[in-house]
Amino acid sequence: MKKMMGILSVATILFLTGCTDKKDNDVSNTKIEQKEVFTWKLATTWGKTVVPLVSAPIEMAKLVEKMSNGRLLIRVDASNKHKAPLGILDMVKGGQYEMGHSGSYYWKGKDINTLPFTTMPFGMTTPEQYAWFYRGGGLELMLKVYDKHNVLSFPGGNTGVQMGGWFKKEIKTVSDLQGLKMRIPGFAGEIMAKLGVAVTNMAPGELYTSLERGTLDALEWVGPGMDIKMGFHKVAPYYYTGWHEPASEMQFLVNKKKFNKLPKDLQEILLVGMRVSAYDMYIQNYDMSATAWAKIKTDYPNIKVKTFPKEVMDVMKKTNKELRTEVAKKSDLLKEILDSQDAYQKKAREWTKMSDFLYLKDNL
Amino acid sequence: MKKMMGILSVATILFLTGCTDKKDNDVSNTKIEQKEVFTWKLATTWGKTVVPLVSAPIEMAKLVEKMSNGRLLIRVDASNKHKAPLGILDMVKGGQYEMGHSGSYYWKGKDINTLPFTTMPFGMTTPEQYAWFYRGGGLELMLKVYDKHNVLSFPGGNTGVQMGGWFKKEIKTVSDLQGLKMRIPGFAGEIMAKLGVAVTNMAPGELYTSLERGTLDALEWVGPGMDIKMGFHKVAPYYYTGWHEPASEMQFLVNKKKFNKLPKDLQEILLVGMRVSAYDMYIQNYDMSATAWAKIKTDYPNIKVKTFPKEVMDVMKKTNKELRTEVAKKSDLLKEILDSQDAYQKKAREWTKMSDFLYLKDNL
Repeated sequence: MKKMMGILSVATILFLTGCTDKKDNDVSNTKIEQKEVFTWKLATTWGKTVVPLVSAPIEMAKLVEKMSNGRLLIRVDASNKHKAPLGILDMVKGGQYEMGHSGSYYWKGKDINTLPFTTMPFGMTTPEQYAWFYRGGGLELMLKVYDKHNVLSFPGGNTGVQMGGWFKKEIKTVSDLQGLKMRIPGFAGEIMAKLGVAVTNMAPGELYTSLERGTLDALEWVGPGMDIKMGFHKVAPYYYTGWHEPASEMQFLVNKKKFNKLPKDLQEILLVGMRVSAYDMYIQNYDMSATAWAKIKTDYPNIKVKTFPKEVMDVMKKTNKELRTEVAKKSDLLKEILDSQDAYQKKAREWTKMSDFLYLKDNL
Repeated sequence: MKKMMGILSVATILFLTGCTDKKDNDVSNTKIEQKEVFTWKLATTWGKTVVPLVSAPIEMAKLVEKMSNGRLLIRVDASNKHKAPLGILDMVKGGQYEMGHSGSYYWKGKDINTLPFTTMPFGMTTPEQYAWFYRGGGLELMLKVYDKHNVLSFPGGNTGVQMGGWFKKEIKTVSDLQGLKMRIPGFAGEIMAKLGVAVTNMAPGELYTSLERGTLDALEWVGPGMDIKMGFHKVAPYYYTGWHEPASEMQFLVNKKKFNKLPKDLQEILLVGMRVSAYDMYIQNYDMSATAWAKIKTDYPNIKVKTFPKEVMDVMKKTNKELRTEVAKKSDLLKEILDSQDAYQKKAREWTKMSDFLYLKDNL
């Protein structure tokens, strides 16, 4: 029945219904369609106030609802609802949720190949990375990695260059990092640990107090747009520029079976909805960071923006290279992905230098 | 009839048609809708091989067709078809075309307020400008300007920083610009003219030969991705970095009456289709420029990338400021737009410096 009703011409419907008093002269200009309504759920890693990260799935759901005229409804559950912020991949894989919104590098413990799709230390910038995803084979590699988990993974919004973090004391030499208690997770945390940092992790809600009381000497979060609400600038005067997450890309996950059951037009609406929301989040975060930094600078004029000294940066880069080589040994596919990123970055950075960098150099 | 048939429940249709043998148990889960099919035309300024500029409307039309399941069909006419590359605004305004794809600054002769929506010399970079459009009031100002022309205008794809152009001789001082025959249109051309350049314009097809034969000493086009096909690198060894078009944004135009006649879901599909195609074009161009530059560099190792000397740049900046102040006197609305851009750029550039610039500085 569903198929038969799929698309009937107006003429057929008129014949069937006996409604032959149609006055408009646009018979060939209309179609009648029976459309199934899909009601989906999306689980996100973020709490509902974690803007702009949580904005990407929320905006995506709104756009999809409007574009599909209510035929694809996606309820977004923040982490306080599903209580499993780091269980998103499993829940989408298992089908409890049709979709997820999270970060690919959170799954490196389950599958090391998922590591490079968020960002890598000293890696690509946001436009470079989007170009790699959409024009340089990156998306194909990501879909390949997630295929064995029976989910699709797509870019889900970018934070741009994340700041290197808030420090209570200035870092002048590598020895200043010895024993420094710092919250810095992931691959960057491993690098810092090799440099002698006492890397610790703790719940976001404890960070401010820990930094204030000295349980932490330093921490990295995101950038001014998200950091301002945490208040770190009130207790740590050195704000270091970024090196470890130059283009953190969030991630949309979609259960593959559920995706395949959608009609083609809804698949397209969903794909475009995810892609545009990802770009939009990048722009939203740009604006939030610009605005927040202007406020921090005005309210706390003593905050000093610092770049790690060359000596420190060189050791970080060397350690990063070693760790990258080490981790690439774990899987051929991972090596393929990292090599693809390296090659693309090398090519794209030349253009970034000629265009954005040299333009900015004369216009700061 | 159209309204009556607008949305009928499955039960109603089944009753009307006598089809009561439906086996699926999903009555409440489906809707039957009569949908009008809209067949539109879009006129673009570009020839059909002018990739990626022409890709933005072509990709937009494809996405819209798929998302709307064929209910909104947009035929894209390249300039060889309609023969009026610089008549796009008039044709959309007059309704011969429902849509257009062009550049806002082409209409400054008709309405000076349209000038600043493409890019301005020494202005915002691409992410800064998108943040201004979508988060800083820029889109509202653009819609306001075009409202009196009864059209809607939206961002239509960005080229990133455009290169300063190909020069046959190195520019060492301002006096090297005296009498230099250069193709450089628009506001930037006015600046160059004030610096003594003999600014000329000619058809794109004549540029290569003119440069080769010395009828031109220099010219600006776009960037490596588009320049490579023109072959300028074969006859002019100095490639100057950009200052005059740091983020050229193309433009989608939509006839307002036609837009208002679309049902809400198609309006949303069109808006999202335009927004995502614009971002996509930026990324496509990034990739094209990175790839083309790698090729030019390999094939023509003698090409020298140059930045104009500080002395020259300072005079350009000073002249730019004077021209900006002058043009702002022409209309209060133009002054409002330029002031809005200046204020946003000042705020955003601080963040760009801390994030992209300082990251790139250590990673070139």
